[in-house]
Amino acid sequence: MSESRQVITVLRPADPESPHSIPPGLDQISDSAEVRLTDAEHIAGDIAGSDALFLWDFFSGALQEAWPAADRLKWIHVAAAGVDTLLFDELRASDVTVTNSQGIFDRPIAEWVLGAILAEAKDFHGNFRLKTTKTWDHRETTRVQGATAIVIGTGAIGREIARLLTSVGVNVTGAGRTARENDEDFGVVVASEDLEEHVGGYDIIVNAAPLTAATVGLIGATTLAAVKPGAHLINIGRGASVDENALITALREGPLGFASLDVFEEEPLPQDSALWELENVMIASHMSGDVHGWRDSLAELFIDNAQRWLDGKSLFNVVDKDRGYVPGKRSAS
Amino acid sequence: MSESRQVITVLRPADPESPHSIPPGLDQISDSAEVRLTDAEHIAGDIAGSDALFLWDFFSGALQEAWPAADRLKWIHVAAAGVDTLLFDELRASDVTVTNSQGIFDRPIAEWVLGAILAEAKDFHGNFRLKTTKTWDHRETTRVQGATAIVIGTGAIGREIARLLTSVGVNVTGAGRTARENDEDFGVVVASEDLEEHVGGYDIIVNAAPLTAATVGLIGATTLAAVKPGAHLINIGRGASVDENALITALREGPLGFASLDVFEEEPLPQDSALWELENVMIASHMSGDVHGWRDSLAELFIDNAQRWLDGKSLFNVVDKDRGYVPGKRSAS
Repeated sequence: MSESRQVITVLRPADPESPHSIPPGLDQISDSAEVRLTDAEHIAGDIAGSDALFLWDFFSGALQEAWPAADRLKWIHVAAAGVDTLLFDELRASDVTVTNSQGIFDRPIAEWVLGAILAEAKDFHGNFRLKTTKTWDHRETTRVQGATAIVIGTGAIGREIARLLTSVGVNVTGAGRTARENDEDFGVVVASEDLEEHVGGYDIIVNAAPLTAATVGLIGATTLAAVKPGAHLINIGRGASVDENALITALREGPLGFASLDVFEEEPLPQDSALWELENVMIASHMSGDVHGWRDSLAELFIDNAQRWLDGKSLFNVVDKDRGYVPGKRSAS
Repeated sequence: MSESRQVITVLRPADPESPHSIPPGLDQISDSAEVRLTDAEHIAGDIAGSDALFLWDFFSGALQEAWPAADRLKWIHVAAAGVDTLLFDELRASDVTVTNSQGIFDRPIAEWVLGAILAEAKDFHGNFRLKTTKTWDHRETTRVQGATAIVIGTGAIGREIARLLTSVGVNVTGAGRTARENDEDFGVVVASEDLEEHVGGYDIIVNAAPLTAATVGLIGATTLAAVKPGAHLINIGRGASVDENALITALREGPLGFASLDVFEEEPLPQDSALWELENVMIASHMSGDVHGWRDSLAELFIDNAQRWLDGKSLFNVVDKDRGYVPGKRSAS
C-alpha cells in the first residue's frame, strides 16, 4: 500500500443520482489501488497522476480535452464493445493501452438480430399495426430456414450472429477486411470494399462492423440501390456505417423492404428524423446488447482486467488502436 | 377410365372468385379419377356417389349436415393440421379414413414461436409502441439462451418447436398425454393433466396441442394463476384450449407477463374482445404456419396422397379419429 499504489480513475456519468453512477465491485481493487471517482467536468484535474482510466461512462468524449493533463496514464478500459467515440489521434499515437468489453454483448446482440429477422419474416410489425385498429387480416409470411444473410463484420459479435443464424438454417456469408474462404464461422467471407457487388444476393444484410475509417459510410446509396428487392437491413453496429439519407430513400422507394435499426448517425434519434414515420422500420434505442445484468457484467469484466493489470499480467481485450477493434485470432488475415 | 373410376370431390370455398378457389394440380389425378368441385351449398348433392372428399375449404363444417347423403365415402383428406372442426360423432363411428396435412406447418410454426419469444424478450412491442410517439427510451432486455419453456403437445409441431428452441439454447420440457423421460426431442415430458403443478417452473409456455376432449380448456384459470410472474404464453394450437376470460384476467392482473396469440376461441377475434386493447398481447390472424407457398404445399400433399389411394397404397397422415390427431411413432406411449 502507500506511495507505490497505482491510481485508477473511474469516469462516471455526470448525474450522481443515477443508480448506475458507480460500477459495482470497486471494493475488490481498492486495497491494492487508489480508486478515484470523477466525471466529465472534473476529469482534467483527476487524470493527472492517474495510471489507469475506466470509462464507465462509455460514450463520454471528455478524455480528449483532458488529454494534456494525462501525465502517467498507461491503460484505458472502456465499458463498451465499440471504441470509436474514444479513439482520437493523440491517444492512437501514444503508448497507452486500450481495452474494451468485447464478449459481454455478443450473444444478446445475436439474439436481437435473430429476433429482428423472425419478426420481419412473420410480419409481427403488421400484427401491432393491425391491432391498433382491431383488424383481423390473414397474411402469408416468410420461411426463415433457407434464407440468405450477409453479415458485415467478422469480429466476435459478427461471428456469434453467424453461428446463431446458421443454427436455425439461415445461410450466412461474411463481409470483412479481406476476402477469404473456409472461415470457421462464415465459410466464405467477401471483402467489405466489394460489398456493392455482392449485396444483391442476400435476403438479409446485417451490419456488425466496428466504426473505423474503413466502415464510415460503408453502406451508402449505391450499395442500398443494389440490394435484393424486399431485402431486410439490420444495423447493430454503428449508425455512421450507413448513409441514413440514402437509407430513407431506399426504404421509401425500394429496393429495401425493411430496416431494423438499433444505432443511428445521431443518438438519441432526432425527433425530425424521417425514420420515425416509416412503416417499414423498427427503431430500438441502442440497446440490442443490453440484457438484464449487463452493467454488472461490464463492471466484473473491468475488475477482472484491473486485477490482472495490478498483478502485472497481460490484459484481456486489447484494442488495436490503428484498426479500432480487438483483432481476433480467427478474424486475422 | 369409364365406370370403374373413383369419384373424388373437392370442397372449395364458396367464393368462386377467390384466387385460391381451386387447388392447383388436380389435372394430375383427373385421368385416373372423376374430380368433382363443390362448395358448402352444394355438398349434399355432390357427396352422394363420392368415394373421397378433399376439404380444401379446411374449416368448413358443411360435411356434417350432408353426412346422410355420403353413401360410399371412404376417405376424407383435410388441408389443415387440426381436424377438430371436422370430427363429428357419426364420422368418428364410421369406417371413413381421415387424413390431414401434418408436416406442412411444423417448421413455419416453430419459427413463429421462436420469433414470438425473441420479440417479447427484446421488447420489440415496446419499440413499436414508442415509435408512435417518436420516443427514445433505452430499456434492458432479456437473454433467451438459458430460458425455460414448456411445450404442450408432443406431436409433430410441438417436436419441431422443441428442436428449434433447443438449438438456440432454450431449455425445453414437453407436456403430453402421459408423463415420460428420455424423449428424443423433449427429454422430460410431464402429463398435461398435471400442467397446473408444473407450469410455475417455466419462463415460456407454448400450446401446440390439437383440440381434443382432453385439451379443451386445458389452460384454465388455476393454471394461469400458477404461472411464473412475467411468464410468456404462446398459443399456436387452438383457441379453445385456453380459457380466454381467465387469460385476459391473468394478463391484466398478473402473473402472466405477455401473450402471443395466433388462435382464439372465436375467429376472427371479435371486435369487442378485450384482447385487442391489452398492451401485453400480440395478436396474429391464425397465420403462424402459412408461409408463402403454403397452399401449393397443401395441394401437393393431397395429390400425393390421392395418387397413393388410387394406386391402392396406404395413405399418409392417417388421423386416429378417437384421439383427434395423427399418432406419431415417437409420441406414442
